[in-house]
Amino acid sequence: MLSLKIISVIVNGIRKSIVCDPEETLGNVLRNQLGLTGTKLGCGTGQCGACSVLIDGKVVRSCVKKMKAIPENANIVTIEGIGTPDNLHALQIAWMYHGAAQCGFCTPGFIVSAKALLDENINPTRKEVRDWFQKHRNACRCTGYKPLVDAVMDAAKLIRGEIALEDLTFKLPENTSMLGTKFPRPDGLPKVTGTCDYGHDLILKLPEDTLHMAMVNAKVSHANILSIDISEAEKMPGVHKVITAKDLGDKNVMGFTFMAMPKNKNDGKERPVLCDKKVFQYGDPIALVCADTEVQARVAADKVKVEYELLPAYMSGPEAAAPDAMEIHPGIPNVHFELPVIKGEETGPIMDEAAYVVEGDFYVQRQPHLVLEPEVGFAYTDDEGRITVHTKSLVVVLPQIVIALTLGLPPEKVRIIMNPVGASFGYKLTPNSEVYMAVGTWITGKPVALHYDYAQQTYYTGKRSPMNTYCKLAADKDGKLLAMEHDIILDHGAYDAGGDFLATKAARFCGSCYHIPNIRGLVKSTFTNNAFGTAFRAYGSPQTLFASESLMDELAAKMGIDPFELRYKNIYRPGSTTPSGNELDCHPLEQLMDMMRPKYQEAQARAITESTPELKRGVGISLGTYNTTGDHGDNGEVDLELMPDGTVTVYNTYEEQGQGAEIGTLTAAYEALRPLGLKPEQINLVMNDTAKCPITGAAAASRLFFVNGNATLHAATQLMDAMRKPDGSFRTYQEMMAEGIPVKYRGKFTNADHTTPYNLDNGQGSPSSTYMYAVFMSEVEVNTNTGKVNVLKMTLNTDIGTIGSKLAVDGQMYGGLAQGIGLALSEDFYDPAKHQTMVACGFPYINDITDDLEVNYIQTPRATGPFGAAGCGEIPLTAPHVAIINAINNATGVRIKDLPALPEKVLAGLKSLKK
Amino acid sequence: MLSLKIISVIVNGIRKSIVCDPEETLGNVLRNQLGLTGTKLGCGTGQCGACSVLIDGKVVRSCVKKMKAIPENANIVTIEGIGTPDNLHALQIAWMYHGAAQCGFCTPGFIVSAKALLDENINPTRKEVRDWFQKHRNACRCTGYKPLVDAVMDAAKLIRGEIALEDLTFKLPENTSMLGTKFPRPDGLPKVTGTCDYGHDLILKLPEDTLHMAMVNAKVSHANILSIDISEAEKMPGVHKVITAKDLGDKNVMGFTFMAMPKNKNDGKERPVLCDKKVFQYGDPIALVCADTEVQARVAADKVKVEYELLPAYMSGPEAAAPDAMEIHPGIPNVHFELPVIKGEETGPIMDEAAYVVEGDFYVQRQPHLVLEPEVGFAYTDDEGRITVHTKSLVVVLPQIVIALTLGLPPEKVRIIMNPVGASFGYKLTPNSEVYMAVGTWITGKPVALHYDYAQQTYYTGKRSPMNTYCKLAADKDGKLLAMEHDIILDHGAYDAGGDFLATKAARFCGSCYHIPNIRGLVKSTFTNNAFGTAFRAYGSPQTLFASESLMDELAAKMGIDPFELRYKNIYRPGSTTPSGNELDCHPLEQLMDMMRPKYQEAQARAITESTPELKRGVGISLGTYNTTGDHGDNGEVDLELMPDGTVTVYNTYEEQGQGAEIGTLTAAYEALRPLGLKPEQINLVMNDTAKCPITGAAAASRLFFVNGNATLHAATQLMDAMRKPDGSFRTYQEMMAEGIPVKYRGKFTNADHTTPYNLDNGQGSPSSTYMYAVFMSEVEVNTNTGKVNVLKMTLNTDIGTIGSKLAVDGQMYGGLAQGIGLALSEDFYDPAKHQTMVACGFPYINDITDDLEVNYIQTPRATGPFGAAGCGEIPLTAPHVAIINAINNATGVRIKDLPALPEKVLAGLKSLKK
Repeated sequence: MLSLKIISVIVNGIRKSIVCDPEETLGNVLRNQLGLTGTKLGCGTGQCGACSVLIDGKVVRSCVKKMKAIPENANIVTIEGIGTPDNLHALQIAWMYHGAAQCGFCTPGFIVSAKALLDENINPTRKEVRDWFQKHRNACRCTGYKPLVDAVMDAAKLIRGEIALEDLTFKLPENTSMLGTKFPRPDGLPKVTGTCDYGHDLILKLPEDTLHMAMVNAKVSHANILSIDISEAEKMPGVHKVITAKDLGDKNVMGFTFMAMPKNKNDGKERPVLCDKKVFQYGDPIALVCADTEVQARVAADKVKVEYELLPAYMSGPEAAAPDAMEIHPGIPNVHFELPVIKGEETGPIMDEAAYVVEGDFYVQRQPHLVLEPEVGFAYTDDEGRITVHTKSLVVVLPQIVIALTLGLPPEKVRIIMNPVGASFGYKLTPNSEVYMAVGTWITGKPVALHYDYAQQTYYTGKRSPMNTYCKLAADKDGKLLAMEHDIILDHGAYDAGGDFLATKAARFCGSCYHIPNIRGLVKSTFTNNAFGTAFRAYGSPQTLFASESLMDELAAKMGIDPFELRYKNIYRPGSTTPSGNELDCHPLEQLMDMMRPKYQEAQARAITESTPELKRGVGISLGTYNTTGDHGDNGEVDLELMPDGTVTVYNTYEEQGQGAEIGTLTAAYEALRPLGLKPEQINLVMNDTAKCPITGAAAASRLFFVNGNATLHAATQLMDAMRKPDGSFRTYQEMMAEGIPVKYRGKFTNADHTTPYNLDNGQGSPSSTYMYAVFMSEVEVNTNTGKVNVLKMTLNTDIGTIGSKLAVDGQMYGGLAQGIGLALSEDFYDPAKHQTMVACGFPYINDITDDLEVNYIQTPRATGPFGAAGCGEIPLTAPHVAIINAINNATGVRIKDLPALPEKVLAGLKSLKK
Repeated sequence: MLSLKIISVIVNGIRKSIVCDPEETLGNVLRNQLGLTGTKLGCGTGQCGACSVLIDGKVVRSCVKKMKAIPENANIVTIEGIGTPDNLHALQIAWMYHGAAQCGFCTPGFIVSAKALLDENINPTRKEVRDWFQKHRNACRCTGYKPLVDAVMDAAKLIRGEIALEDLTFKLPENTSMLGTKFPRPDGLPKVTGTCDYGHDLILKLPEDTLHMAMVNAKVSHANILSIDISEAEKMPGVHKVITAKDLGDKNVMGFTFMAMPKNKNDGKERPVLCDKKVFQYGDPIALVCADTEVQARVAADKVKVEYELLPAYMSGPEAAAPDAMEIHPGIPNVHFELPVIKGEETGPIMDEAAYVVEGDFYVQRQPHLVLEPEVGFAYTDDEGRITVHTKSLVVVLPQIVIALTLGLPPEKVRIIMNPVGASFGYKLTPNSEVYMAVGTWITGKPVALHYDYAQQTYYTGKRSPMNTYCKLAADKDGKLLAMEHDIILDHGAYDAGGDFLATKAARFCGSCYHIPNIRGLVKSTFTNNAFGTAFRAYGSPQTLFASESLMDELAAKMGIDPFELRYKNIYRPGSTTPSGNELDCHPLEQLMDMMRPKYQEAQARAITESTPELKRGVGISLGTYNTTGDHGDNGEVDLELMPDGTVTVYNTYEEQGQGAEIGTLTAAYEALRPLGLKPEQINLVMNDTAKCPITGAAAASRLFFVNGNATLHAATQLMDAMRKPDGSFRTYQEMMAEGIPVKYRGKFTNADHTTPYNLDNGQGSPSSTYMYAVFMSEVEVNTNTGKVNVLKMTLNTDIGTIGSKLAVDGQMYGGLAQGIGLALSEDFYDPAKHQTMVACGFPYINDITDDLEVNYIQTPRATGPFGAAGCGEIPLTAPHVAIINAINNATGVRIKDLPALPEKVLAGLKSLKK
């Protein structure tokens, strides 16, 4: 028998009677019962603060606060009670002004928390703001925290009356360009008011006969399945169906075949939808339980019994690549893809004769994306009979194809719609949960929702693929690079779907930023029993840049010259070629380094004067570059439609991951349509629904502002040509109709005309439209007693071409740098049975990220880019971690080659130096 | 397979994706999916406007708007988008200022509708406001509409800048009395903002494993049940349990035995919980289907098959009372209670000798309460093991006892909590749905919710009991009343539970307001196969006053004198006695009539000058009186507790039906505690939870301001005595604790010391504390072509003693007059198979209720009343209908004796006059 409690409390200023299970959490009651979905549930264990609410003025993490602990008459305030779209609180205004909501999932919790701070201290220092957020565990993965602190400081000023509302309200002068401005993000208002419906919010707003699905996940990493018993689960309350491989028959193969590159020994059929013969990694789904409620589904899922025969688990690339390792996918070699890099002369003789040679083995870890919002989505049959899946996908066309191939449907019978997402940073490149949802609806005929808990999010979503990179550099006596060799083992985990493509990234960016005339290398993609690999911001480059940028410092040390100047000598200049042998459309690295040099020198001086034996300071430099657009043939489309009211609607699939897809779309359309004299609010956005929008492609490879912008320009030209009258003025919608002129035009872009294919036989080619560039500088302090590294400052000088939205770009830079600090120092997903929380995975909280993030831009216009733009999102995470590792070395002499640089590793390094 | 549609719309300023069944209504989607429970669902068929929302600026009734008819990009505004507690719209401010939200269930719809009006016409006339609400079917049952129009007019002025916010903000000067002021109602803010959670809102906010119950209602009025087949229903999706009488065993008897009066031939066991042998009335419940969702429960309920043997249905009192009628409840005579009235001399000889005698048969119909909110509630086992039922009950102790008796539980194992209610007007005196809910939880062990549709609300809630009243009056040559005879058949429908008590009311008020020295009468309560009888405002008096107040006009006509003056001659004055033989504590009728006389004379003059042959005008007068407190021994209790923060908490069961229980409680406590100098906001209200509050009794008999006020005064005296220090100042809570003095005191009131029992052998006694008085004047216009009657003005002069809350009292008066107009002209519930909607039942919309409602007060202090108050709610519905009927007669000569005075009846009267 279920006993309930009635409690009388004030919620957002109004007395409410709440009838609830006393063991239920406040977070669930607010969301599931009261419909106050502004409060977000992230980690579910009190680690992320997204669920913060106020109880009697105190910040409380509602995901761990049980109803039985709420006092009668408690005064509860949620984001909905802080301010509403018509009546915003100063914090919400400042949050929008600073673009502080990127994915926005943490925003309600931060704003609620900040409200409590300002209520008790209306004049806080930045440090007080940061300490408050640290104390209350307000976690943000997008922003690097700096814009959040900026917003709180400005909100406090506004409340104190030191600035006016206009000071926090961006106004675009009429008929001026939006490029490079702080024009507010269209997604800001819903995100700061808690009215943006993310996936789980939408699930709560689905029709009540929606089924809820729970995965039965394997809790072993490698095993043969002996038996699966669902009989007890089927009898549990509320259960409608327990789906296993048997229900799928011959459709139990994830439809990834189209992704396999030539030369890949895996045909893309290795991944079952539901495991029935083998478990390939921890978390593999064995059954899907569909029940009336999520709780019922999870309770029943626990009743599914599976018998295993355990097999040896291969938990690293080298182990799995060893000749005696068993085949994880029987019939497919573990090392299923090999990519040679052959540039210039044979490197062996050069190495033998070079004045300076350095080499080493480097390991970059399985960086977890650590988004705040766990995987979530739902599926149903739409009113045109399409299996429709709502997803966090960053490339909506991909689950569409995978589901169609899996279920043997024509792609037009599958529709993908993107939900607002609590970030991805790449993990949502790989569809898998979408397939489970589609299968659920396909089998039950009902709407089906799926929501991972945070443990499932960590152990059963894709991760950055670790790489073991052996690298060797040779230079002449003046430090001019002569040759590079590498041997890279890429651990793509249990499944492929991109393991080959990632190898090309590893190859293209190892040694990048420098002209290295002669290269011999090999990248091997291997199956392991680890979490399957997927995209992560700067995909493939941080792993190999860690090797080459560490070795540049080693080389300089060996030569006794400054690593900055060694780099300066070798950077891309006209005539240089990349590791894949292509020349470049511009060469901003020299200017970026020139801008950095005085800062570097000052930092070096500071480090020396402020270093103590206990707290040693150091400065590190690294360079990074990344491609804009994917490979040769990358393309995308955008529709523009003139509407009866004179506005224009943009249709695209520019997936909003928090990076600024909406502001990017608006900016491109506004700029492209400037001759029409439209105001920004006269541009409507219809995005990320495969049934309504042409395919613009993946939110990856920093390609979407570029591809979407170009396609928008193409569509705008057509539309304006059609609208233009002989006298140069423009026809109205009504005039177009009267003359029978179409009002909707499709803009297309392809990079095929200015790129060349990437050659899988030698790793050579010029497959991308353009590149972004960065110079990173890190200033660190190393506690020699504890080994703890404190990053004091990160400076990033970057060229990403013309800046679109300054708000979005700044946000990307700060956020990327923060993820670089995490990559360098704390983040890892190693043991899937243990690393199931944000804290266990080394999530960086605000006091782990320096407030001193300096970003400087030069804007070299790209000939192929819309308005001269390149891309943005990847560049800040290409090599920031190496600057930090180089700074640790600069401070202490310790060289970390195995990330993350946990205190114990630094301490061990310090001890071994003393010997 | 369920197909869903996704639609992108703007909801309250924010773009939302809604995934829904295209056949679903917008109202259900807003409430059930989006959690926007500010939009209320009343009738469900587009007749009440409670569900009004704006779509692209137009008022739309969301209960009948299907999602498939909502255009993409529609701009939807609900009450939540009009204004919030922190940011109220002018309409919401004005609504509170005018106390325009009584039960408040119609309020969101009205405010949304008015917003659309003001958006297109910021300077409307009162007529334009009224026509707008008429056009948009905005229905209100509480207010008589006048305060709503007042509020719209003032909101428009505020928006136009003609008045200031302060002009619509009541401020109580410090340390002044609240009595008679427009101090705002505490329930105003949640009601005007849509944040007040009514029963169905709370159901939507229950834990998700709550079961939803649907009744299987008989669709015949009288039958033997041959078989009940639940097998198909049990197999329907989502069904957990189909409860029938079999599941109840020996507990299948509603626990009403304690209510039966002496001499009642019915022992109170005639009503089964679920019918298994017989159906006694249309709608009788045969089974209760418990399922996961309300829709599933209803679909399954339709699958229960019942075989009947039809029996003759007795659809009127006289038919059922006829000697040859079969016993509806076998073993109990249909006429189960007879109450004689014996006052003074035998009336036969007086009648024979009197100068003037008039007599007639009069019928008052089965007036339906026509609340906007259909019956709703839920039950669960609370954390102390009590079966807890949330209900609309107007007397929470009654379902507690009935459930305890039904299930054989001690009363303390049953807890009743009152939800905010969309009005009752008396129908919630009789518990029955509460028993079904309790049974549901008792049998399933789970929370169970029950929600009637509007058809169920009309055919299976109690109704005002019709009475066939034969009455005869005798007067001497001067018009002085000598005697009265009556013979009344009271049709209490299929079940008793109060049929006897109602007979006492009929007897006490037939001929009331006049000193009639000699009375012989008989009131017979009979079972019929109609809807069971229950309380309705002014309980019992409108039925018999219709006879006596009609006959007063007939008598005056016969005498050739003005009916006003005939009344004036006979009204209660010192020395007069009521029909039950008691003298009175005050005699305000003379003053009330003196105040009315000039108005009456003016009205008569107006009627003559403005009458035309087609539109005949007339003026009618009637008098009314009603008791305050129930019968001898009526009592109630209130607790006051000093809190640690110096505030005082009031605990009572003063059931808020919209009449102003919260403002009544606050007023009484504030006044009683004046010596403490508390501000109103320092008084906390904990109300209507039997586990927390002492029993203050029923919101009936206009007793609660009186009983609660007296008990509060008693408690306040004790509390202040305990707090008072020797120097006359008061101890703080902390000082009380330190000295070990209790801080919580129970105030008690009983009327036993100043009343006498009502004698069931002769209908004599003085059972009530005091009485309220009224003089009604109606001015009407009768269309002689159509028979349609238009009430032009209602004037009410009343004495209810000292006025508590002026806002609440005014609202009661206007609302009561409006219900009087409906009673006179349109309202009826006759054929249960047809009269299942508001329109079919003759609900009065705004243009059916005159805007010219004039109420004048005198405030004769009552010696027994708190602060001199009597009561309030019943008085305006005692006799307003007779003033209207008398005015019709005055205008046309037609005498309507059978209510309501539908146009066809008036037309028939006009035709027969012509003959």
